[in-house]
Amino acid sequence: MINEKNVQLGMVRSCIRELFEYGKRRKAEIGEENVYDFSIGNPSVPAPKEVTDALVEILQTYDPVFLHGYTSAQGDYSVRKTLADYTNARFGTNLDADCFYMTCGAAGSLAVALNALLNSGDEVITFSPYFPEYKVFVEHAGGKLVAVEAEKGTFKIDLNKLESALSQHTKGVIVNSPNNPSGVVYSEEEIKNLCKILKKHSEKTGNPVYLIADEPYRELVYDKETKVPYIMNYYEYSLVCYSYSKSLSLPGERIGYVAVNNQMPNFSEVYAGVLGAGRALGFVCAPNLFQQLIKKVYNVTSDVSVYKKNRDRLYSELVKYGFEVVKPDGAFYMFVKSPEEDAKAFCERAKKYEILIVPGDDFGCKGYVRISYCVDPNMLERSFPAFKRLAESYK
Amino acid sequence: MINEKNVQLGMVRSCIRELFEYGKRRKAEIGEENVYDFSIGNPSVPAPKEVTDALVEILQTYDPVFLHGYTSAQGDYSVRKTLADYTNARFGTNLDADCFYMTCGAAGSLAVALNALLNSGDEVITFSPYFPEYKVFVEHAGGKLVAVEAEKGTFKIDLNKLESALSQHTKGVIVNSPNNPSGVVYSEEEIKNLCKILKKHSEKTGNPVYLIADEPYRELVYDKETKVPYIMNYYEYSLVCYSYSKSLSLPGERIGYVAVNNQMPNFSEVYAGVLGAGRALGFVCAPNLFQQLIKKVYNVTSDVSVYKKNRDRLYSELVKYGFEVVKPDGAFYMFVKSPEEDAKAFCERAKKYEILIVPGDDFGCKGYVRISYCVDPNMLERSFPAFKRLAESYK
Repeated sequence: MINEKNVQLGMVRSCIRELFEYGKRRKAEIGEENVYDFSIGNPSVPAPKEVTDALVEILQTYDPVFLHGYTSAQGDYSVRKTLADYTNARFGTNLDADCFYMTCGAAGSLAVALNALLNSGDEVITFSPYFPEYKVFVEHAGGKLVAVEAEKGTFKIDLNKLESALSQHTKGVIVNSPNNPSGVVYSEEEIKNLCKILKKHSEKTGNPVYLIADEPYRELVYDKETKVPYIMNYYEYSLVCYSYSKSLSLPGERIGYVAVNNQMPNFSEVYAGVLGAGRALGFVCAPNLFQQLIKKVYNVTSDVSVYKKNRDRLYSELVKYGFEVVKPDGAFYMFVKSPEEDAKAFCERAKKYEILIVPGDDFGCKGYVRISYCVDPNMLERSFPAFKRLAESYK
Repeated sequence: MINEKNVQLGMVRSCIRELFEYGKRRKAEIGEENVYDFSIGNPSVPAPKEVTDALVEILQTYDPVFLHGYTSAQGDYSVRKTLADYTNARFGTNLDADCFYMTCGAAGSLAVALNALLNSGDEVITFSPYFPEYKVFVEHAGGKLVAVEAEKGTFKIDLNKLESALSQHTKGVIVNSPNNPSGVVYSEEEIKNLCKILKKHSEKTGNPVYLIADEPYRELVYDKETKVPYIMNYYEYSLVCYSYSKSLSLPGERIGYVAVNNQMPNFSEVYAGVLGAGRALGFVCAPNLFQQLIKKVYNVTSDVSVYKKNRDRLYSELVKYGFEVVKPDGAFYMFVKSPEEDAKAFCERAKKYEILIVPGDDFGCKGYVRISYCVDPNMLERSFPAFKRLAESYK
């Protein structure tokens, strides 16, 4: 009688969330220090001091009627201008304030972008493993998510499979680099190849395929030589969905943006679609206090060196115990091959060693597990003997 | 090619917003003090000191990983518990934390509630004059908005017209009291009559009609004898969409909630639908800093005495000049009969006297204009000679 699809979405808790709740119960039973919880991607590093200082200063010095008042639907002009200037200086683009639309985080960005672009029956391609909410957002916008398997082992884009998946219904492609859950970063060459295929397909059908870059993990890369190519420099029909959730450790505050590439021939139409979608979805404007914050700390990031150390320690230990691991270049996830075919069974066995990890099945990729290493380094160290025993149990 | 409906929504600026932008240009031309801008409903009273103090204290004392972290999708438990206890004490309900779902303001609340309830083709009734975005939210959720004319002159609910408008497709009714734009507050008797009709219709068709109370203006009533009945005490199938935008002068921060009446037989289904809709629309959770704020200031309101004084001054002056005015019991809008049939022409003439007011046509009610009196009392006083000359021009 009421909307069955949304009732189902509300009833079925995600497997990740279930595991997280199990972890809380288990910690109460056997003590916090004895459970090794790698289930969720909640930043463990606090927001940098600059964030708290700027928020307090803004609250103590700005006129409250301005500060807490509505901004224009696309966001405060001076905030968007700051972001345009910064993006241009950093990536060599030529964007202006009116290419930016401030949002309630990456989920808001994706929902708005997809509702702007999709008509009923349109297809959106992404590469598995992928963040499971993509399916929810695409389907709410009336579309169908088409998952194209990445290359097993490397988790790079499988260009042949992508070509086979493109159809006359393809409206968009979502790329997520650094990737959740694999931690893979796509190289410039990969992005160039991807764009070449999309351009060829668009020319063939006469309908542009839009490229949506989901970038909450852009700032979370750990090696100097790792570059994350800026999609707008390679492809006209592109939108960047950005969020400060991970880079500034503000996931609960919901602040980010959509940037629409002004090189696309129908830019005005797409930007208007973004505005209209935000209105229809009920967003009104992104929280103003956090918009004003971003104007001050747009180039600050949390101390991600903790994640780098965690990555290096976890990788070297897991390899030592015989696990087959994709070394992540970014984000704070490690994707590990399950020692048995059924990754769910592996995760259940890991629970016996008080290790909480998520099967890749949830990300559309069987036979692997995701380990979120945005955790306390001390817990990480304490977990190694358990990982070792877990590995030995398969010998 | 892309979503035409959302492109249109993004291109067509609301008439209110157009007028507001005109006002900005005009102020630059002839001086801020010479333009009498009554176009928009942006609170002119600053957020109370308690809000700034609580925000600063929270920022300076809470663990940032907790404070800025994800809450559960429905909101932090302790925040919801506080709201349940407060609502029960205030209205005699028996709600618990799990009846509440924290949202990004009233627009978010309405979008979530409507997407939870509606299937394609469902009808939602509201009473004109009404807030124009209702149509946008209902249509995005796949429904059709059916506007039932309120009684001309009093703007009370026309029960006969309501009965005629009910159909087998009616899924919900939106009531907004105190009303934007008329300022009318529905009495207990009116609410009882409304509920009786909806119950009778639900029994006849076998399908419940859901009653959605849109309550951003609940705290903005100006006379002791004016009571705003709490809808849950009269009707099982009810949801309250609340916002702190006007009561705490925080419209740009986007914080509010949906409360689902736990007396409805299918409560769990509807609450799950709300959760699922929030997920599908991309909300994730309401901004955590503002959730924590509400836990501390849930019973505080801005100094609304300024609005009361404005109402009384404006009402007595307009009546003196011969205007026909509905005296508002709440909100910060006055609905005035146009001295000529075409309210748009009247608004254009008002512009010549530098008075900016909005035609009722935008609210689905011809022949009236809306005056937003959430303005500086000094500007209000300065505007009276202009209103007088405007009235005289019709004699």
